[in-house]
Amino acid sequence: MQNNVAVRNIERADAGLVKELGEHGVATVHEAQGRTGLLHPYMRPIYAGARIGGSAITVLLHPGDNWMLHVAVELAKPGDIMIVAVSAPNSDGMFGDLLATSFRARGVLGLVIDAGVRDVRDLTEMQFPVWSRAVSAKGTVKATVGSVNVPIVCAGMVVHPGDAIVADDDGVVVVPRAQVAAVADAAAVREKNEESKRARLAAGELGLDLYGMREPLAKAGLKYID
Amino acid sequence: MQNNVAVRNIERADAGLVKELGEHGVATVHEAQGRTGLLHPYMRPIYAGARIGGSAITVLLHPGDNWMLHVAVELAKPGDIMIVAVSAPNSDGMFGDLLATSFRARGVLGLVIDAGVRDVRDLTEMQFPVWSRAVSAKGTVKATVGSVNVPIVCAGMVVHPGDAIVADDDGVVVVPRAQVAAVADAAAVREKNEESKRARLAAGELGLDLYGMREPLAKAGLKYID
Amino acid sequence: MQNNVAVRNIERADAGLVKELGEHGVATVHEAQGRTGLLHPYMRPIYAGARIGGSAITVLLHPGDNWMLHVAVELAKPGDIMIVAVSAPNSDGMFGDLLATSFRARGVLGLVIDAGVRDVRDLTEMQFPVWSRAVSAKGTVKATVGSVNVPIVCAGMVVHPGDAIVADDDGVVVVPRAQVAAVADAAAVREKNEESKRARLAAGELGLDLYGMREPLAKAGLKYID
Amino acid sequence: MQNNVAVRNIERADAGLVKELGEHGVATVHEAQGRTGLLHPYMRPIYAGARIGGSAITVLLHPGDNWMLHVAVELAKPGDIMIVAVSAPNSDGMFGDLLATSFRARGVLGLVIDAGVRDVRDLTEMQFPVWSRAVSAKGTVKATVGSVNVPIVCAGMVVHPGDAIVADDDGVVVVPRAQVAAVADAAAVREKNEESKRARLAAGELGLDLYGMREPLAKAGLKYID
Amino acid sequence: MQNNVAVRNIERADAGLVKELGEHGVATVHEAQGRTGLLHPYMRPIYAGARIGGSAITVLLHPGDNWMLHVAVELAKPGDIMIVAVSAPNSDGMFGDLLATSFRARGVLGLVIDAGVRDVRDLTEMQFPVWSRAVSAKGTVKATVGSVNVPIVCAGMVVHPGDAIVADDDGVVVVPRAQVAAVADAAAVREKNEESKRARLAAGELGLDLYGMREPLAKAGLKYID
Amino acid sequence: MQNNVAVRNIERADAGLVKELGEHGVATVHEAQGRTGLLHPYMRPIYAGARIGGSAITVLLHPGDNWMLHVAVELAKPGDIMIVAVSAPNSDGMFGDLLATSFRARGVLGLVIDAGVRDVRDLTEMQFPVWSRAVSAKGTVKATVGSVNVPIVCAGMVVHPGDAIVADDDGVVVVPRAQVAAVADAAAVREKNEESKRARLAAGELGLDLYGMREPLAKAGLKYID
Repeated sequence: MQNNVAVRNIERADAGLVKELGEHGVATVHEAQGRTGLLHPYMRPIYAGARIGGSAITVLLHPGDNWMLHVAVELAKPGDIMIVAVSAPNSDGMFGDLLATSFRARGVLGLVIDAGVRDVRDLTEMQFPVWSRAVSAKGTVKATVGSVNVPIVCAGMVVHPGDAIVADDDGVVVVPRAQVAAVADAAAVREKNEESKRARLAAGELGLDLYGMREPLAKAGLKYID
Repeated sequence: MQNNVAVRNIERADAGLVKELGEHGVATVHEAQGRTGLLHPYMRPIYAGARIGGSAITVLLHPGDNWMLHVAVELAKPGDIMIVAVSAPNSDGMFGDLLATSFRARGVLGLVIDAGVRDVRDLTEMQFPVWSRAVSAKGTVKATVGSVNVPIVCAGMVVHPGDAIVADDDGVVVVPRAQVAAVADAAAVREKNEESKRARLAAGELGLDLYGMREPLAKAGLKYID
Repeated sequence: MQNNVAVRNIERADAGLVKELGEHGVATVHEAQGRTGLLHPYMRPIYAGARIGGSAITVLLHPGDNWMLHVAVELAKPGDIMIVAVSAPNSDGMFGDLLATSFRARGVLGLVIDAGVRDVRDLTEMQFPVWSRAVSAKGTVKATVGSVNVPIVCAGMVVHPGDAIVADDDGVVVVPRAQVAAVADAAAVREKNEESKRARLAAGELGLDLYGMREPLAKAGLKYID
Repeated sequence: MQNNVAVRNIERADAGLVKELGEHGVATVHEAQGRTGLLHPYMRPIYAGARIGGSAITVLLHPGDNWMLHVAVELAKPGDIMIVAVSAPNSDGMFGDLLATSFRARGVLGLVIDAGVRDVRDLTEMQFPVWSRAVSAKGTVKATVGSVNVPIVCAGMVVHPGDAIVADDDGVVVVPRAQVAAVADAAAVREKNEESKRARLAAGELGLDLYGMREPLAKAGLKYID
Repeated sequence: MQNNVAVRNIERADAGLVKELGEHGVATVHEAQGRTGLLHPYMRPIYAGARIGGSAITVLLHPGDNWMLHVAVELAKPGDIMIVAVSAPNSDGMFGDLLATSFRARGVLGLVIDAGVRDVRDLTEMQFPVWSRAVSAKGTVKATVGSVNVPIVCAGMVVHPGDAIVADDDGVVVVPRAQVAAVADAAAVREKNEESKRARLAAGELGLDLYGMREPLAKAGLKYID
Repeated sequence: MQNNVAVRNIERADAGLVKELGEHGVATVHEAQGRTGLLHPYMRPIYAGARIGGSAITVLLHPGDNWMLHVAVELAKPGDIMIVAVSAPNSDGMFGDLLATSFRARGVLGLVIDAGVRDVRDLTEMQFPVWSRAVSAKGTVKATVGSVNVPIVCAGMVVHPGDAIVADDDGVVVVPRAQVAAVADAAAVREKNEESKRARLAAGELGLDLYGMREPLAKAGLKYID
């Protein structure tokens, strides 16, 4: 892996498919790709209700230093999501409303950062969504070079530039670029499938019957007692 | 304690009293039963403002496996609350909108789970309240049998089936079935008592005077300095 | 440091300046005083959107005992903020709606407490803001004397009575009384400065150009790759 | 559950069997009773190498108060282990070398406490073993009554007086009194069984062959690649 | 508080008394000064068995930067203990065997650091004691100026240069310089007092009788049950 | 990335160089490769004093299931180190003395596992070193297939099969296979360089002079005060 580089041109997955993944949401996409790709659950949204899907611009920062975010925004395109790792555990407030203004002007949909964020009141008013490990006003410097668009490990997951990122109230999931089409298909099937189940469950049918679980439960040793 | 059993018939406390406890809320009920019964404060609601009181259906799950929730829902009655322990620390997303649909169809008021939950945007829209230790999209399997309606330890507290559960923005408290009537009485007295205090404090009277604290404070060694 | 004392008369900073600091918010004030004074980021507001600035009434409590809060309220003046340390780590619910009623009647703007808080639904309805390390219904006693208006360490920061406290969704920052005027000036300059930057960034200008970062980044070793 | 009581006479399991459990150690006993009974892994020994099995004297303390330990020691018999819960999360140093001297004089084998411990250098020299959640010199008071020999929840597990407790470098496990004989038998079988396996593995035989795992792995979908 | 300064001449407490405090150990000193002064229990020694008392050289570092430790060592005298705070939470390995060699050459007795330490195998061989919040090999830079011999907050406690520091297996306690003599006296009394108690407890006398607790316990509501 | 595969043949770095890295230790190797490659500091050794360097056999397990460790051992060669990730956070005791016996018989030097370990007393007696996030007796099953010798993320770091792993009391560092020779060279230079520094520091020379820091410190703004 090269250090201290900013990679200008990256391949992105089909924009329409990535957007579709965003509409399915994190839980569905995570299931659709075989229960993989989920970032650690300490990554939480700063406000409830946002749901986005986009193409990853990856950023590697050093603790207490957010310089590379300015490099990253120039390399982003509308529909991208910024996803940021730090080289050591850090909760400083790496991102605030000025950077959000710049990101939005360039069409960036949101930020996923394994560090802190600040100006959350302003970000909430702007409805610029951020998923982070902390909220902290702790200021940062611009002194050390990191990298943009190299593979990173963010909250326990490997992310390559151009992978699809989906984030909502349930957390953040990454879909490798090569699997975007397959996962989008599987997610659509899964969602369709859930609709009919939802209706039957709402009508009072039990999952025990809907999924045919009574026999397997008995075989697995469940005993009913009165 | 028996393993791998589902107990069909449990005794519940008087439904009216349990509902009353719910209206008093967690802090009042916790005080009314002598400051006992509170689950660990890491149990947090997925959205603000819900307040419920109901009869406990207890569930023991194994990590990464939510199979028994389907067994539990059949044994629940309107007005019940599902309360779930896991046999080892686990933050997986054991519960989502499909199960919530099924629970609601059966009259279950809400869920308390010492694990993770997902689909929180949908659950919020449905206003189906959940108290959990984590939000996580991490999917689960249906492979290992646990138990329903056996005594469990949930977030540090013993819960028996049919105990009263009260949950709101302050957390979750359990009231043993045999004490429901006494606690409901004590809570009502306490709440009434607080009303007049609230009015006097709002008018500017000090707690020092209202509660007669000046002398005990002096005796306990407090010195005023100018 | 004296123990078991309540200091009646403390010096406060200029009320107008302290209010101004509150309007600037935590991130701006933290930067304006050279990135110092920030409490640990585990201090979180119980509801989103509050922003206050006030003069510190400091309180030192012992674990599980909130007695001194009643002593403190008598010593507070309109525009004060109560800031509370505990002599050992503690998450008990030291403060609730009755005390909030009393605090509000005396003009106290809000509470910062390195412990737990309860009745958060009521506090939210009252819009009485609290920053705490935990939400917990766990009740407390009134048995041990602490101190009011002595220097404390709250969430990692030294606070003296009469220091300025600013709190919002980003956390809590303390400004030593002697520096209030200088920090208010620096914050005003900083905020003004940010307005023009915000407009230029919103128009699509890059931080790289706005801040003249391209040359320093190259000098620091950043390499672009296609 | 009664509060503020000290129960003088409790039933204990057969002393010989309890001692045997201690010799098997935590991992073996935990397996022998179907992977149940293990306290949370945050319970750690203050020094390496101790391994004990004994009969539980249960103690319920309140935060910052160790008064009931003096009540408990009078009710203990040689071969007992003291196991202590606190009514709210607490890391204070509840136990030190003076109490250990008293415990030892009465034949108590060791202490399991869901709180803090101090004087660990002295305790190590005395070889009086303690399992705790923290080491802390923080002193405690003797002001509030708790209970002795009532059911408690310690580090997530229900413990009744007279249950068997086993503790070593792997943690702490509780065996319900009624199951002591069955678990001791199962543990002995398990240990014997492991001896021959150990010899074969030491000789270079693979678990894959020893346990016949190759076919089940292939069936479960494992593929080998060169 | 001044920033970016190194204060050359500080007042120290009487060296003999400080050494005496060290011999009493953390728990005794903490009690002798009224249960105050204890650093958070997350501060742990890198090896068991060390016990030191010395005069504080205080150091304020910035995250990931250990430059000021080199400034501090020049200002230390034999019998001093280095105590280090960092301006934001940080676990980097700020100290290793080379600095320890330099510290020892100058007579520094040990290090207390609210960050990480590395080379712990070498430090253990040298028997150079360190109390830290983490062990981490993560390297640091020498780029940002901090301060030496200014008041700091280390692990929740205010420390002034020249205060006495006592550290052992139980943690770390700070004694304000002006109280060293009084605390040393109180500690000596306390220790003497404990000797006779230890002998009586070892002989099987109960704390209940030794401390006359039976009547207060009964008054406080304890009931014995058979 | 392929799932459910075991890769038989992997490329390893030069065994002599990997052993050399092990002798340099974690801190030196981490510095020698530009302060990268360090696993999270929560990875701790089960006993003090071990230091190993070896070639990585990577294993991906699922929570509560250690089946693939048996697959992995067949693919290991003398001088290898087993390094294990789990697909979701888990502290179960995945490894104990029987597996250690098998690993040792095959020449595996040690284990790095982002989960729990048990039988630590036996492992310590065997001097089979393990670095883990937890010690826990919690037993595991053998039911779900994972992978061996695929890229994994262990404690925040990407590890490929055949990378060099170095572990000691300071933690664990990974060196990509392609960089082993260069890092070994840099580590040797660094260590040699440190020897002469150590001697000069031991003789009382200050780092301020040895490293020529006085001028840069003054330039950076440090002021001395008497």
